[in-house]
Amino acid sequence: MVMTRNGTKIVGLAPDRQHGFYGRDIVSVRQFTREDLSYILSVSDEMRGIVRRVGATDLLKGHVLANLFYEPSTRTSSSFSAAMSRLGGSVIPIHGVQYSSVSKGESLPDTIRTLECYADVIVLRHPEVGASEVAARYASKPIISAGDGVGEHPTQGLLDLYTIRAELGAVDGLHVAMVGDLKNGRTVHSLARLLRMYDTRFTFVSPEILRLPEENKLELAEAGRPFAETDNVEDVIGTADVIYVTRVQKERFADLREYEAVKDYYTITPALMSRAKERMALMHPLPRVGEIQYDVDDDPRAAYFRQMENGMYVRMALLAAVLGKA
Amino acid sequence: MVMTRNGTKIVGLAPDRQHGFYGRDIVSVRQFTREDLSYILSVSDEMRGIVRRVGATDLLKGHVLANLFYEPSTRTSSSFSAAMSRLGGSVIPIHGVQYSSVSKGESLPDTIRTLECYADVIVLRHPEVGASEVAARYASKPIISAGDGVGEHPTQGLLDLYTIRAELGAVDGLHVAMVGDLKNGRTVHSLARLLRMYDTRFTFVSPEILRLPEENKLELAEAGRPFAETDNVEDVIGTADVIYVTRVQKERFADLREYEAVKDYYTITPALMSRAKERMALMHPLPRVGEIQYDVDDDPRAAYFRQMENGMYVRMALLAAVLGKA
Amino acid sequence: MVMTRNGTKIVGLAPDRQHGFYGRDIVSVRQFTREDLSYILSVSDEMRGIVRRVGATDLLKGHVLANLFYEPSTRTSSSFSAAMSRLGGSVIPIHGVQYSSVSKGESLPDTIRTLECYADVIVLRHPEVGASEVAARYASKPIISAGDGVGEHPTQGLLDLYTIRAELGAVDGLHVAMVGDLKNGRTVHSLARLLRMYDTRFTFVSPEILRLPEENKLELAEAGRPFAETDNVEDVIGTADVIYVTRVQKERFADLREYEAVKDYYTITPALMSRAKERMALMHPLPRVGEIQYDVDDDPRAAYFRQMENGMYVRMALLAAVLGKA
Repeated sequence: MVMTRNGTKIVGLAPDRQHGFYGRDIVSVRQFTREDLSYILSVSDEMRGIVRRVGATDLLKGHVLANLFYEPSTRTSSSFSAAMSRLGGSVIPIHGVQYSSVSKGESLPDTIRTLECYADVIVLRHPEVGASEVAARYASKPIISAGDGVGEHPTQGLLDLYTIRAELGAVDGLHVAMVGDLKNGRTVHSLARLLRMYDTRFTFVSPEILRLPEENKLELAEAGRPFAETDNVEDVIGTADVIYVTRVQKERFADLREYEAVKDYYTITPALMSRAKERMALMHPLPRVGEIQYDVDDDPRAAYFRQMENGMYVRMALLAAVLGKA
Repeated sequence: MVMTRNGTKIVGLAPDRQHGFYGRDIVSVRQFTREDLSYILSVSDEMRGIVRRVGATDLLKGHVLANLFYEPSTRTSSSFSAAMSRLGGSVIPIHGVQYSSVSKGESLPDTIRTLECYADVIVLRHPEVGASEVAARYASKPIISAGDGVGEHPTQGLLDLYTIRAELGAVDGLHVAMVGDLKNGRTVHSLARLLRMYDTRFTFVSPEILRLPEENKLELAEAGRPFAETDNVEDVIGTADVIYVTRVQKERFADLREYEAVKDYYTITPALMSRAKERMALMHPLPRVGEIQYDVDDDPRAAYFRQMENGMYVRMALLAAVLGKA
Repeated sequence: MVMTRNGTKIVGLAPDRQHGFYGRDIVSVRQFTREDLSYILSVSDEMRGIVRRVGATDLLKGHVLANLFYEPSTRTSSSFSAAMSRLGGSVIPIHGVQYSSVSKGESLPDTIRTLECYADVIVLRHPEVGASEVAARYASKPIISAGDGVGEHPTQGLLDLYTIRAELGAVDGLHVAMVGDLKNGRTVHSLARLLRMYDTRFTFVSPEILRLPEENKLELAEAGRPFAETDNVEDVIGTADVIYVTRVQKERFADLREYEAVKDYYTITPALMSRAKERMALMHPLPRVGEIQYDVDDDPRAAYFRQMENGMYVRMALLAAVLGKA
């Protein structure tokens, strides 16, 4: 596969020798080496510096991003759109595609091969696991996954990692607690996969029925990362450096009484935060629906809105990197 | 509240000492002093000059607008989008949000606080009265209301005011007739509120059941502005300097025969215009559905399409002003 | 009709003396002389050169395109959007307009006259035949049709023509086979209308019930272009320089057995391609649903994705030309 404009596409997931991002797809957190991560975090830092000092650059002037969302996600699509705009590039927003040629029965590969006639890079959100890899196989321009089904959400994993480092100065040596629905939360899976490349230990806080999947635990064990499980956030509140909260959905419980019995174990309140470490980061991928109370927002350790902002810097870094301009 | 990039946000509605717009929210026509209005009308003039001479500027290059529409409004969203584009900035269009995280139950404050991580200014259209003020309270970046429910539509009020001045050279001394549904029309309410700061007199032309609300009449009385009421546009056609037409919806009438009996009182025809002043402005916020006949369009006093165009200049002025670049 | 910014609009379809595009509407392939076609193909060539060398230009910096789609078409709207972006201009995307003021009953002329207050050029896709001509009649800014109903799709016709020339070096002297649903395919009608200005001969390959309409055959006869009809693509595979495939929809057949009996006559397979001329172009307007098998995609004669890419160049040429910047 040869890129129309920019040279040869790096096929597959193996990093190349330079910095490994030019022409490459971003479809899974599994594709990154620790070197890759260092690189992307440091470019993200530069992007943050640029935006804070002058708002934007012309790095990707004349470049076009196709923002292809097969399911709605205001947050993620806006983040990519803003990232491209602040790099001086243009965005083709493609939402509600259920109504368009896709619904006439066109295959994903044909849609991708069409869009890459117009755009230099394609961001893809799709409801089916593996859609990003299929897209990447057919595309000669870089594909960046914005999440596919319960599968991967690699840019979310990277922005979470970036936030941990930005909040706490380093990633090695931390105790990370993940709280809530650890079974279905793709953000949790992606982040755990990235963090196992660092010297971290984990506590997974969830109801019995929403435990982290065996596959993920195995990965951590193989990487030599210690972890524990519990069903109450009280158990980690005093020792965790990072508390990463996700929503526990009522619908997951067959018996609603069971839900009522445990739900308070996973709700962050000011009272709870008063017992947390003085220096720690409270994170959430958002949207939240009650699992972090609003009166926690003013706590300086509440990092979730900074986490959102960081998403834009990390996506700027990725866009610039895959287009060879970082 | 401190702005991430641009310094301190001016909280609340009080004008500051400079020109009162930098970092400020635009959520109500009540917030403006007559000085504010002079300022924004004169910046709008400059914007019109720029667009007519050269089409666009780079004043807001590198700036990003989040155009957040919780209900559709092609006209208003396009106007803001064009305004931002002609200032050299970028737009993140966020439409159909009922399908996105908002529908997953996220609160408006969380959505606003997320979007301001990406954008420098947020335009908000929302179906609920007061939504803009809620958004403004939580945001550290400027919020510009694009209408919330039957409440305010401040930028429409400003563009109407600008149009009156542009069409007739001045605002003081005019006789302004407002025609149609004066009870539910938020554009009418906003414009009347602005005009009471000028030496104008009013005639309100509507069916009995669609009269201007008492609250608005009280405001006019307190400001010392004379007004009369009538139910037939014939009564003002010869004396009005401005005729501002809005739609009378059939659905407002319990008895359809009543509607049939009066509807022609509120329809503008060429015959009617032949009896209007030679120098006057016929206005309408659009869309119209029959209340101004198409064969009136070529009348030089028909100002409604120029009114649309002015909307872009006024919104350019507001965007530049709240971002400190006017 | 006088243009607000750019001078006098050229009314109607007659070419003007210079190159005939500045200020002009693009609503029908019938409006072009062969000189017009030469001009637009050569500007398209320049656009391709620019994009391939440097990705984009600033030719339309400060200009705004309103991309008004009354029915969804990801492919066409993305193509125009990318075209405008690569020319340095801005795009106001207006999709899903069934929900907006149009659905409140606003007339197409009012919508167009509003949008031209904001934009310099309007691209219009509409489900009703003739909508583009109506829009053009009321607009003072240029209207470019992106297809109206089963009527015209002039930019598709132009990009198809451009592709034939780009693939085969010239248009005169070719044998063009059109395959599939020739009755309802507006792309086929538009292309045949353009090609009759060149020294081409045609074979129309379709089931009896989906033959080219009499009107189109008459046009060809009047232009002195020879054509034949057949119901099997086998009859042209060895002699056609261009095979232009469209979909045969099951729904068109009253008797499904009839469909089953003929459908393979219109499916392109590698086996079939092995008997085609060594130098020829296999084209399709896309989306396809099985009528060209995926394993044909790697055949160097499979031109349909290049055809897509050419669409962007032709639309860049048209946008620049109607805005007087080509």
